[in-house]
Amino acid sequence: MKKRTHNLIRPLVRRLHAYVPGEQPKVRGLIKLNTNENPYPPAPEVLAAVRTATDARLRLYPNPTSDLLREKLARLHGCAVENIVVGNGSDDLLALATRAFVEPEGFHGMPHSDGDAKFTVQYFTPSYSLYPVLADIHGAVKRAVPLRPDFSLPTPEELKTSKTWTPRAALTFVTTPNAPSGRGYATAELEALCRAHRGVVVLDEAYVDFARENAMALALRHPHVLVSRTFSKAYSLCFQRVGYMVGHTDLIAALHKVKDSYNVNGLGQVAAVATLGNLPYYRTNFRRVIRTREALTAALAALGFEVFPSQTNFLFVRPPRFSAERWLAALRQRRILVRWFAAAGLREFLRITVGTDAEAEALVRAAKRILAERPPTITSATRTRPR
Amino acid sequence: MKKRTHNLIRPLVRRLHAYVPGEQPKVRGLIKLNTNENPYPPAPEVLAAVRTATDARLRLYPNPTSDLLREKLARLHGCAVENIVVGNGSDDLLALATRAFVEPEGFHGMPHSDGDAKFTVQYFTPSYSLYPVLADIHGAVKRAVPLRPDFSLPTPEELKTSKTWTPRAALTFVTTPNAPSGRGYATAELEALCRAHRGVVVLDEAYVDFARENAMALALRHPHVLVSRTFSKAYSLCFQRVGYMVGHTDLIAALHKVKDSYNVNGLGQVAAVATLGNLPYYRTNFRRVIRTREALTAALAALGFEVFPSQTNFLFVRPPRFSAERWLAALRQRRILVRWFAAAGLREFLRITVGTDAEAEALVRAAKRILAERPPTITSATRTRPR
Repeated sequence: MKKRTHNLIRPLVRRLHAYVPGEQPKVRGLIKLNTNENPYPPAPEVLAAVRTATDARLRLYPNPTSDLLREKLARLHGCAVENIVVGNGSDDLLALATRAFVEPEGFHGMPHSDGDAKFTVQYFTPSYSLYPVLADIHGAVKRAVPLRPDFSLPTPEELKTSKTWTPRAALTFVTTPNAPSGRGYATAELEALCRAHRGVVVLDEAYVDFARENAMALALRHPHVLVSRTFSKAYSLCFQRVGYMVGHTDLIAALHKVKDSYNVNGLGQVAAVATLGNLPYYRTNFRRVIRTREALTAALAALGFEVFPSQTNFLFVRPPRFSAERWLAALRQRRILVRWFAAAGLREFLRITVGTDAEAEALVRAAKRILAERPPTITSATRTRPR
Repeated sequence: MKKRTHNLIRPLVRRLHAYVPGEQPKVRGLIKLNTNENPYPPAPEVLAAVRTATDARLRLYPNPTSDLLREKLARLHGCAVENIVVGNGSDDLLALATRAFVEPEGFHGMPHSDGDAKFTVQYFTPSYSLYPVLADIHGAVKRAVPLRPDFSLPTPEELKTSKTWTPRAALTFVTTPNAPSGRGYATAELEALCRAHRGVVVLDEAYVDFARENAMALALRHPHVLVSRTFSKAYSLCFQRVGYMVGHTDLIAALHKVKDSYNVNGLGQVAAVATLGNLPYYRTNFRRVIRTREALTAALAALGFEVFPSQTNFLFVRPPRFSAERWLAALRQRRILVRWFAAAGLREFLRITVGTDAEAEALVRAAKRILAERPPTITSATRTRPR
């Protein structure tokens, strides 16, 4: 049977590795600190708006360009509706940007050289591991530019002398604040970085509501800069798949041209609009998450964890005494799920979502017990994606 | 400003025409017979399931591969879970098929010849006007193969002598029953057609629940055939964006590799699963729509309309006395929205969704008045897409 389908599938697609999604625990009662979801539910008004909209209108097509949501977002960010495109989660938009701005290598396979810029997706490592996947699916050339050891950004001068970076990459993704490290970047620093680029730069601000600064102004100031946002994490709507990008009208129009006609489901649009009417509720939650984050940072540091400073809703830590992989298993045994990446350069670390105070306290209690006993030895590794 | 963004956007994307979505009437109280939505709401149990799921879980990611829904669909169609992929509406899957099975022309532009098969998206005309849009976005070569004047399929022998058709096109889309004509095709005829193809054939069964036959068996019998289905029209869930494809595990695995990680929103999955638990409710509605369709066919024929036989939830008609464009405007003036296509070969016709009995009766009353008076002259045309 394999032979009969072999020639039906593009060689590029045949070479892709099947994507392994992050763990969806089937066991109930686990403390889930592995995928950076918000521990607090959507505002009651948002749930009520979705329930109220759940009626005969489900039979009708949703607004194809999420116009009401774009109007509300335009007001929020002080820009025009034409500066905004809404996606089926921000992942949809990251994929659309790849397709709109980067030439596919195509069937013939080109020799790669400095002339590759038009084919190139560039990103820092470590950062969101979806970027190389999108490049592979599109048949683009990948350029992975290392962050400094402390996960800070190289300066434009350092980039210019770097062999991995090119200012002319068709598309450069910057996760800001960074994932999985949690490191935040100053807007001034990001602006200097953007100025060094000639191609499109996407500032992926999936976690920015937990940070001190955001770079939205850069999307409205520089024609080659797009800012990506999501309702998933900060606004507790992962389930509903709503993200958006802000930038120059020409780039936004290009994304509209390549998107699916009805890319954002109707109840997702309803939920996102209602969310924007209840921002104080969410801002209170951001402060709660940040307080828990600071308390958890101190508590883990006291136990010997090296904790990187975080501007997100998760912590990146180097655990003491045992390997990170053994910690992963030991915490799992105590019904706490955290994230470990098998990749070189990341395998010494754990990424831990900041949950509620109670969840953070349970984590610290479990860590104390693990340090008092011996963690189990490893039988099988967990290989998953950041975010 | 244009100049500053010109080089940022792929030439292929710059050349695309901005998509103009179908009319979303802002006026209330219109009878909406223009986009083939089901006139009946989802089952009460489906609405209840969505409302019940609208709680704190919205903060969590949905199942990335719609596993529960795929299990239920596999049971329904008597196949394995691995024969099914779920999409953000079937449009998502039609786009994924284009990306998984067709080589993009790429940046360099190849001369087109019979060696184009790997780059070719093939479809019959008229049919779903999204297919050429998907080909253009991907940079594929388009082959539009004319249906016979009565919208029946050419035979494999006719195709072999046709200059437009190639058996080796990487991907061929067949809308069955056909849109916009409403014509149904026998499974035996579709199987003969599929046997003539060497590339992937997608049988797009968006309207099949209103037809006498379906071709699902072909997807499970032939490794190069995929059947596409949607919950939008027959199952009153346009708003929620859920479609699926069935076929050989290798093709389905390829589609999974190129899809967005969380492509189907959670409440859409909940709604679709609940729908499958309430099929008798929908089957009753199919019979109601078919009864209304037959009554409306007779009533319009009595007024002098040429009505093509329909196996869908819409009618394709050649109206009497005045041009179709003038009929469009005259009906609109009477608060009834139908669909008119400006394309050559289609501009003599109207496509009219079969609504409730009351809506069909209102349409017939309006048609009688228009025939008694003179319709208005045309000032501006409405240019929209089928479906």
